[in-house]
Amino acid sequence: MALIVQKYGGSSVADAESIKRVAKRIVDTRRAGHDVVVAVSAMGDTTDELLELASEVAPIPAPRELDMLLSSGERISMALLAMAIHSMGFEARSFTGSQAGMITDAHHGAARIVDVTPIRLREALDEGAIVIVAGFQGFNRDTRDITTLGRGGSDTTAVALAAALDADVCEIYSDVDGIFTADPRVVPKARKLEVISSEEMLELAANGAKVLYIRAVEYARRHGVLIHARSTFSSTEGTLVVDEARREELSTLFPQLQGDHMEEPVVAGVATDLSQAKITILGVPDIPGKAAEIFKIVAKSGANVDMIVQNISAATTGRTDISFTLPKSDAALALRALAAEQDDVGFESLVHDDQIGKLSVVGAGMRSNSGVSATLFDALSAAGINIEMISTSEIRISVVLRGDDLAEAARAVHTAFGLDGEVDATVYAGTGR
Amino acid sequence: MALIVQKYGGSSVADAESIKRVAKRIVDTRRAGHDVVVAVSAMGDTTDELLELASEVAPIPAPRELDMLLSSGERISMALLAMAIHSMGFEARSFTGSQAGMITDAHHGAARIVDVTPIRLREALDEGAIVIVAGFQGFNRDTRDITTLGRGGSDTTAVALAAALDADVCEIYSDVDGIFTADPRVVPKARKLEVISSEEMLELAANGAKVLYIRAVEYARRHGVLIHARSTFSSTEGTLVVDEARREELSTLFPQLQGDHMEEPVVAGVATDLSQAKITILGVPDIPGKAAEIFKIVAKSGANVDMIVQNISAATTGRTDISFTLPKSDAALALRALAAEQDDVGFESLVHDDQIGKLSVVGAGMRSNSGVSATLFDALSAAGINIEMISTSEIRISVVLRGDDLAEAARAVHTAFGLDGEVDATVYAGTGR
Repeated sequence: MALIVQKYGGSSVADAESIKRVAKRIVDTRRAGHDVVVAVSAMGDTTDELLELASEVAPIPAPRELDMLLSSGERISMALLAMAIHSMGFEARSFTGSQAGMITDAHHGAARIVDVTPIRLREALDEGAIVIVAGFQGFNRDTRDITTLGRGGSDTTAVALAAALDADVCEIYSDVDGIFTADPRVVPKARKLEVISSEEMLELAANGAKVLYIRAVEYARRHGVLIHARSTFSSTEGTLVVDEARREELSTLFPQLQGDHMEEPVVAGVATDLSQAKITILGVPDIPGKAAEIFKIVAKSGANVDMIVQNISAATTGRTDISFTLPKSDAALALRALAAEQDDVGFESLVHDDQIGKLSVVGAGMRSNSGVSATLFDALSAAGINIEMISTSEIRISVVLRGDDLAEAARAVHTAFGLDGEVDATVYAGTGR
Repeated sequence: MALIVQKYGGSSVADAESIKRVAKRIVDTRRAGHDVVVAVSAMGDTTDELLELASEVAPIPAPRELDMLLSSGERISMALLAMAIHSMGFEARSFTGSQAGMITDAHHGAARIVDVTPIRLREALDEGAIVIVAGFQGFNRDTRDITTLGRGGSDTTAVALAAALDADVCEIYSDVDGIFTADPRVVPKARKLEVISSEEMLELAANGAKVLYIRAVEYARRHGVLIHARSTFSSTEGTLVVDEARREELSTLFPQLQGDHMEEPVVAGVATDLSQAKITILGVPDIPGKAAEIFKIVAKSGANVDMIVQNISAATTGRTDISFTLPKSDAALALRALAAEQDDVGFESLVHDDQIGKLSVVGAGMRSNSGVSATLFDALSAAGINIEMISTSEIRISVVLRGDDLAEAARAVHTAFGLDGEVDATVYAGTGR
């Protein structure tokens, strides 16, 4: 008998029928002899509808009240889910974030979990009940106010509960079958991975893969939580996201973790991202401290910078160009802030480009294998695709390309690294989160 | 500067526009220098929609989970209302039932308030904030679970808050202008009352008047809370519902309470009620203990009996007939229970009649004035209306008539007691709760 935490997103509980389907799935897990704790998101578009209502009554809603408002969404879904389970003859109890002991800081709208004290959940489990917890929400001990965790909050709730309760696995359900070697909508020959290391998953999530939120993966890694990413709509095994250090230990429970994984491909997957824009600052005086000055301005504007590239200075002018990428939605902030400081910084002009795409190859095997960048550049070159920027980490290489080239590039690179499967992934995977 | 508790029902906060209108009203009260605590219901039909969802996922929803579900409705409206006030430049904070210290027993769906510990509300008031509290809900200390108060719960929340905070007045807003001498839809010449005693209000509410819930009036009376029933849609003064014992003391704050009220009419108002049915049990053996036997059966069925009339036994048969009224919705329960025990009780047959109407005249002056029943019976007789049952209390006389005659009877009685106003009430009163 194991303790299993399951997380169901908004699309899995969008209406009464879906809720009953999820309830049945939970009951099946209980019938198999396991203790079950469920973190659930608000139904379908509830959160967006509540945000819309808020914007109708107040141009800038008070953050404390916005959290109070939004937290009602999970309250509805969790109570309905508990009722549905109850009416199948199983004891189920729902708990709000604060009842579940999800303690956060006081940062409304993007609160961080500081402690989890699941006393009432343990009591309920000891009494044989299935536990349903509102995802996405917590409460702050000092202000005694309700908080919400922000984007991907319910995934984080599930992982935090799994860590606090020392669960055997945290199953994160969505409408896709697991983690793929690439987005099946972009690369039809993408394969589902049985296992991926948490550090690889982090890089994929940070570079455009959307099945898991990076924050939840980080939390899982820090607390040694095994994630199982799988589909609400099928009983197929999904993908295990495992910390390499715990792989051996966990393999008694999960046979797919056994075996010599040193034989695995160097590259685990290819991530694609069309959500970024590029800003180029032309004619920056090539003197020490200019880059620091620029990125201090950008940081103060609230924009999140991803890649940065500085060209070699032309000796004749004493000036250089600096390019960086950032989320499209942050571009206006950064441009406005930079333009306001143009005279102080002394650059010549700003160029904004939102037609870029980013492709990343990720693999823990890169550490011990050379030639990965050569293979990547060869594949792109053979496909006639131009590279605009390059950045690397220990287990990742990312390139910026024209957005229009991104899909073709991803397919070429996927093939070049031997990742292609035999069947089109689109046949059995969903088409979005 | 006074402390004012205000209660707004679902129709007052049905959409974003209504919420902004209510917010403005609250802000105006604050601007006038008062501390304000608001109890608010769920928006429009939210509660019914949530009940519908519940019935879709579970035929008989678990009571604990149903309360968890329903309590989200007020959470939405209170957060939106607080935001709306906030965006008008005033500090506002919303609190759930449990945050507000609304402590109840564990009777899910119809919990009774056992204590109110509004510590956080006092803190917020001391800091100059407008306080918004979720109506209709509380929590139980032992189970630590959310409860709901049942029908009329938000009125009761408001009155309980007013009592616990020692508020100067509890304003209950609805879509009518106050308490009328009769339902203006039935009696167009009904007048709005400036003042009514709480004991009269209790009798009116118990006999069909719908502006205030009887439970809230009872709570107010027990705790000496002054209620002001008024309209969300106008700034006209409504009706003060006052405990006679406190009238003198309160008259410094509310001039309309001054003066010699011994001159007031004997009858305060006429209540009409079409929601009851009559069951007659024919041929009951006229021996001691039979009535007790019958009403034990009815009570056990869960039906709430209102009036009971036993005819004089016909000496020749040794049998008598017993009639009683009860809510139409309880009639099936009672009939089934009685039919099952027919042989044991030994009655001859059951007659069910759901075409009745009940008319009541209520007035504290009845205590010191004779002739009220004579005036009532004369008026009905002059209008050619037959009386089927009569019951009286210290300050009320009720008669059961044919339902089709009820409106005509109410107009005739209203005129006979000198209650008619000069203008049609329908012109300035709303047409329902």
